[in-house]
Amino acid sequence: MTLTEVLSSLRPADTASRDAAQKKVDGKTMPRGALGLISECAVRLSAIQRSTLPEISGKQMIVFAADHGITKEGVSAYPAEVTPQMVMNFLSGGAAINVFCRHYGIGISVADVGVNYDFQDVPGLIHKKIAPGTRNFRAENAMTRTEAEASVLAGMETVFELHGKKSFNVLGLGEMGIGNTSAASAAIASILKLDAEQVCGRGTGLDDEGLKRKVNTLREALKARKPDASDGLDVLSKVGGFEIGAIAGAAIAAASLGCAVVLDGLISTSGGLIASLLCPTVKDYLFSGHRSVEIGQHAALKALGLSPLVDLNFRLGEGTGAAIAIDHLALSCKMMREMASFEEAGVSQKD
Amino acid sequence: MTLTEVLSSLRPADTASRDAAQKKVDGKTMPRGALGLISECAVRLSAIQRSTLPEISGKQMIVFAADHGITKEGVSAYPAEVTPQMVMNFLSGGAAINVFCRHYGIGISVADVGVNYDFQDVPGLIHKKIAPGTRNFRAENAMTRTEAEASVLAGMETVFELHGKKSFNVLGLGEMGIGNTSAASAAIASILKLDAEQVCGRGTGLDDEGLKRKVNTLREALKARKPDASDGLDVLSKVGGFEIGAIAGAAIAAASLGCAVVLDGLISTSGGLIASLLCPTVKDYLFSGHRSVEIGQHAALKALGLSPLVDLNFRLGEGTGAAIAIDHLALSCKMMREMASFEEAGVSQKD
Repeated sequence: MTLTEVLSSLRPADTASRDAAQKKVDGKTMPRGALGLISECAVRLSAIQRSTLPEISGKQMIVFAADHGITKEGVSAYPAEVTPQMVMNFLSGGAAINVFCRHYGIGISVADVGVNYDFQDVPGLIHKKIAPGTRNFRAENAMTRTEAEASVLAGMETVFELHGKKSFNVLGLGEMGIGNTSAASAAIASILKLDAEQVCGRGTGLDDEGLKRKVNTLREALKARKPDASDGLDVLSKVGGFEIGAIAGAAIAAASLGCAVVLDGLISTSGGLIASLLCPTVKDYLFSGHRSVEIGQHAALKALGLSPLVDLNFRLGEGTGAAIAIDHLALSCKMMREMASFEEAGVSQKD
Repeated sequence: MTLTEVLSSLRPADTASRDAAQKKVDGKTMPRGALGLISECAVRLSAIQRSTLPEISGKQMIVFAADHGITKEGVSAYPAEVTPQMVMNFLSGGAAINVFCRHYGIGISVADVGVNYDFQDVPGLIHKKIAPGTRNFRAENAMTRTEAEASVLAGMETVFELHGKKSFNVLGLGEMGIGNTSAASAAIASILKLDAEQVCGRGTGLDDEGLKRKVNTLREALKARKPDASDGLDVLSKVGGFEIGAIAGAAIAAASLGCAVVLDGLISTSGGLIASLLCPTVKDYLFSGHRSVEIGQHAALKALGLSPLVDLNFRLGEGTGAAIAIDHLALSCKMMREMASFEEAGVSQKD
């Protein structure tokens, strides 16, 4: 499998199904547009599934984990050892994302694409490690271009292999990686040509001084690395992360299978943004799981033209917002299938 | 049962349980506060249930329906006959709220507290009609004070009777009533001493001219009726609606049973606001289901100190936002019960 092969296999969502679905929604017993984003989801899913009776037949979450050399600059409130510790927490079912996936009946898989820890004997983990963490992108490129491509391919392979074993048509993309809000913010700033200050938030809980340090670190790094805003792999290699590349690849692979793809917070959305650079068609398949408190995510969502489905003041990642949003997609399908039309219910229309 | 008896039976939520729950949440494997409103729900439910292991053991929705004399002023985009038509749609399971309740496993009951239609032989409906619609509150009081009290008692009775038949500890409060955004907006403006313009939205779909007519109608009505901002029953009788009174009563009754109460959009929130005038303790039990597009609701939520759990651009009512939020409460309980602590999972804490 090559990147080019997968990219060329994506087809745009179907505009005829979208129009027919919109017409169908407009005939449901409610004021026009009264179900807001739920109606929008139903219409977009109809376009993706090429049917005005969309359904969610299987729900999957993948959490990609990796470490980040940039943590050496003191840009995170938590020590880097938390990345492998949280991977173990995911595998034993005790993290927030595990609770959320159980609640919504979503299958969960965890993939190591670059954690600085030897998981050799750990069962249940998907092993796709590119390297034990990126390099410190303030001082040098985070990874080589070959590694960047490998991370995208690792995400694709993870999706194709999982999809070969179990059926799903909606995929949530979560992540774990201490330091990864810095990498994601830098990637978004690179692509959207923004200053570090316009994309930086407090991550897992920086204080004012920590935030200032993060902004300065990113500003210097962006000046030194000079990522090419039009080249997703260049951005990824210079300031990205292995889990961000994997998320980009997973989104594209899932879209090539006709799956809806639900992004989560800042990091996941940065992966979606890189995916859209590699393959603009992928945007037809992307949904925004939730509105993060990280401002960099808002910029990325605007660029992708996506409205977040959940706004609960989360700043956790892992896929938690995406999990809730996946259930919103399921709800939108039921609305489409089960809700009566004005005609069926004998309800009068607008005066 | 008298109003005074029920009002005096409410006890405040438990602050010791709330503090213990907050401490427990802070020890879960995530950055402090990272689950935002979901954590807040868990803490508030702990205070309501007097336990740091809160649970949702039964979920119920009640949709109260009534008609409004104010529709004679052309304040709604839909004809008044839609109220009974939609009641029939609820009973046959074809409305949005039916789909939502099925999706989340929420029991649904529909109560007629003032629809201008004879439902005598209709099975499945809860019959609590006070009168066949309110009077036009631009010209005269919407109802007598006795009727206002009766509508509150009707809501209470509905809850007590339902709770006698099946167990639930969370109650969503929805409504149906063409013209009721006008009544709800007028009630909110009365209580919060706002101008009609600060509380009026487009309801089910007014155009610019319609909105202007609605604002003018409400402004004149408020000037003529002079509701007493400190007296919930006076506000209700002068500009309210039977379903709004019933919602206020239902909220108080549910709180007296120790149930969490999830409000929906503008109308439901106006009922919650009236309930809080009758009995301030009820606020401990109230949750805001969703952020409506109606600005009057935002003012009421601010006054109640509530943050909406859902923001999906809904402008439907029926209880649809509350249904989603009820599921968020269930999620928050699972977080509390199933998520590992830093200690349990062996995860390092903040530097």
